[in-house]
Amino acid sequence: MPMKILFHNAKILTMENENIIDGDLLVIDTRIAYIGQDASIYGPFDRIIECDKNLLMPGFKNAHAHSAMVFLRGKAEGVTLQKWLFDIVFPREANLKEDDVYYLNKVAYLEYIANGITACYEHYFYPLSSARAAHEFGFRTLLLATYDKEKYPVSTLIEQYREFNNKKDDLVTYSIGFHAEYTSNEEMIKETKKVLDVLKAPFFTHVSETTKEVQECYERHGVSPVQYLADNGLFDYGGGGYHCIHFDDNDIAIFKKYHLNIVSCPGSNLKLASGIAPLRRYLDEGINVALGTDGPASNNSLNMFKEMYLAATLAKIKENDASAISSFDILKMATVNGAKAMNMLDADVLAVNKLADIIMIDLSLPNMFPKNNIINNLVYNGSKENVVLTMINGKILYEKGLYYLKESPKAIYDKANEVMERLESDLVK
Amino acid sequence: MPMKILFHNAKILTMENENIIDGDLLVIDTRIAYIGQDASIYGPFDRIIECDKNLLMPGFKNAHAHSAMVFLRGKAEGVTLQKWLFDIVFPREANLKEDDVYYLNKVAYLEYIANGITACYEHYFYPLSSARAAHEFGFRTLLLATYDKEKYPVSTLIEQYREFNNKKDDLVTYSIGFHAEYTSNEEMIKETKKVLDVLKAPFFTHVSETTKEVQECYERHGVSPVQYLADNGLFDYGGGGYHCIHFDDNDIAIFKKYHLNIVSCPGSNLKLASGIAPLRRYLDEGINVALGTDGPASNNSLNMFKEMYLAATLAKIKENDASAISSFDILKMATVNGAKAMNMLDADVLAVNKLADIIMIDLSLPNMFPKNNIINNLVYNGSKENVVLTMINGKILYEKGLYYLKESPKAIYDKANEVMERLESDLVK
Repeated sequence: MPMKILFHNAKILTMENENIIDGDLLVIDTRIAYIGQDASIYGPFDRIIECDKNLLMPGFKNAHAHSAMVFLRGKAEGVTLQKWLFDIVFPREANLKEDDVYYLNKVAYLEYIANGITACYEHYFYPLSSARAAHEFGFRTLLLATYDKEKYPVSTLIEQYREFNNKKDDLVTYSIGFHAEYTSNEEMIKETKKVLDVLKAPFFTHVSETTKEVQECYERHGVSPVQYLADNGLFDYGGGGYHCIHFDDNDIAIFKKYHLNIVSCPGSNLKLASGIAPLRRYLDEGINVALGTDGPASNNSLNMFKEMYLAATLAKIKENDASAISSFDILKMATVNGAKAMNMLDADVLAVNKLADIIMIDLSLPNMFPKNNIINNLVYNGSKENVVLTMINGKILYEKGLYYLKESPKAIYDKANEVMERLESDLVK
Repeated sequence: MPMKILFHNAKILTMENENIIDGDLLVIDTRIAYIGQDASIYGPFDRIIECDKNLLMPGFKNAHAHSAMVFLRGKAEGVTLQKWLFDIVFPREANLKEDDVYYLNKVAYLEYIANGITACYEHYFYPLSSARAAHEFGFRTLLLATYDKEKYPVSTLIEQYREFNNKKDDLVTYSIGFHAEYTSNEEMIKETKKVLDVLKAPFFTHVSETTKEVQECYERHGVSPVQYLADNGLFDYGGGGYHCIHFDDNDIAIFKKYHLNIVSCPGSNLKLASGIAPLRRYLDEGINVALGTDGPASNNSLNMFKEMYLAATLAKIKENDASAISSFDILKMATVNGAKAMNMLDADVLAVNKLADIIMIDLSLPNMFPKNNIINNLVYNGSKENVVLTMINGKILYEKGLYYLKESPKAIYDKANEVMERLESDLVK
């Protein structure tokens, strides 16, 4: 018999619109079976959760992440980007092994679920290690895999894409992309395009994150990175870009033409002094804008409340207009728009038959007082400590500060510490 | 007999320097009596708190606040500053009564202590109501009082200043200032100057928060707001400014000459699209820079972790330099520098004989992993849920999510809700 979990006496923000419903939400197995005033006729239930009028809403979608980079958090903050990359990050990443990613990802997942994040778009080395970690942990993940002549030839990408997107795993899906124009080459582009053509698959990459990147692309190719990628047919089946800070009108036109998604990472963009993306303009142009934390080394939080706050307030500074973007539009970026960018359309809003990726927000804490406007409070003063329950795929993984996982947080930390010690000692060798 | 509370087996960041000590910290009555490897010879103790190597550090100093404005939080976010002020804020503030401020302040204090804030610089109507609330709650407060012909004539300001600063209250001190140049007039300035001259007291005000304010001051007086206030002798005995975003070289020279303090409020400055203060420049010039949350309506958080993160990252964007300000300098702004600006030199660092305004930070949560650098983690990924204990003046007011106060949080919320209902119904009349 499938599990029936009743959320009783909740406020429910479905994210289909701004309305907040008072009532019940029923989860059967992995999906939402009922939302309405009273679910009692559907009983008996395996569990009844008394919500005390706290808020149920869709979990946050972290639409750009390098989860395993958690080992680099706090390693060096007051240094320039160049020094950080070449002296700190790259030497350690060079020694990363397949299992390292598997163990480190789980540390990030602990933080995700405590913060109400129920899915991420995972872009890092060893995507199958991330698939394994996500599956075991119970965390919903879209992988980004990249062509590599040795490890990821065209045939492997095609095979894995088909496997995962034909429900090989109930939590893990698969996509194609690469790091960036400035780390690509002609062979990579040609082979990636072959994969995309066979699969009719969307393509994602970092793009226009810094002015330097844009300028150097002009020097190399005479066009902007967006134009260059489009010229090579990489966006023929959709997809999108991470960061997208330094766009010109032509770049925006290309994003509109191909219905591409923008994943903005305001926390990372501040920390690395990359700039402020013109999100208001993108919304005005009808482009789907999602939010991501980027990696824990370049943020350093894995916290969508922070990203929402930054997206909202940096837009005000950018536009010199305190009314730049509405709170509901910001909340959509962190939830529904992320699901759209990640092609998780079954897990976007709270509605009957949707996947049960749900979080509960404690409205009784002082930062939610007064309840003048719950959506404003979430965006401008919501915080991780408000997350009292995180459910993914119908399973409660986190509740009232405690984790309900196959292994203990301590076991996860211990393994990650072992990995980190080895990475440091490898450096000395 | 005075209470003896031992914090055992802690990591201690005194903020005298960047070092972190492993050991014990002993509080006797209101002050720190010992910091070192082992306090056991000073026993017996009234209570021994096992710290499990979590971090003790000075409480955060919120150097600019309008605490009672908590009733306006979330009231209107997607609107312009003018509309917000004239349609939302001012009509409600017009009906504020003395007791309202007393009740509303306590709601903000609940949030302060849950977030590790142990003192604030309180700038709002009815300073004596704030004094009463702070005293009863046990919250350390510096009041800002403003000349008013009827309610706060010169004699009253002088009398109250002397009373409070001669230890009328062990938690409340007193200072003189006014809202801003653009809401002042000649009489106010003349009478305020009289008060300052008698008391040889510092003067604080909002200054250079918006370009409009600066421009209009030039139109009125032919000089910048800072120059205008200095010309009128208001800075003759020190003091400082809140916000201080749009300074020119001459303004900076004046701040250096008079040893004035800058209280930056990056969260508010973002939300109201006021601009980004050049904090790196101010530090380079040797000016004392503190941080404030501003009021809960213009932020909306009362969260120094957020202010630290924003100060650090906005400086990077402003200077286009990811190494703009070190994490330790940011942490000083939120603690020691705030104490200096607020003349709370007895409550600045953790050291023997200093007042026991102490917080404990949980280092075991995922956002503090790994412990590559604890100070970097605090600034870039520290968060309210890491605050597990808040002590003010030797009293534990908050521990592990629970409040230890004379009244329950519910009683505080209930009273505040009554006030808010009346304020809304007053509007209709």
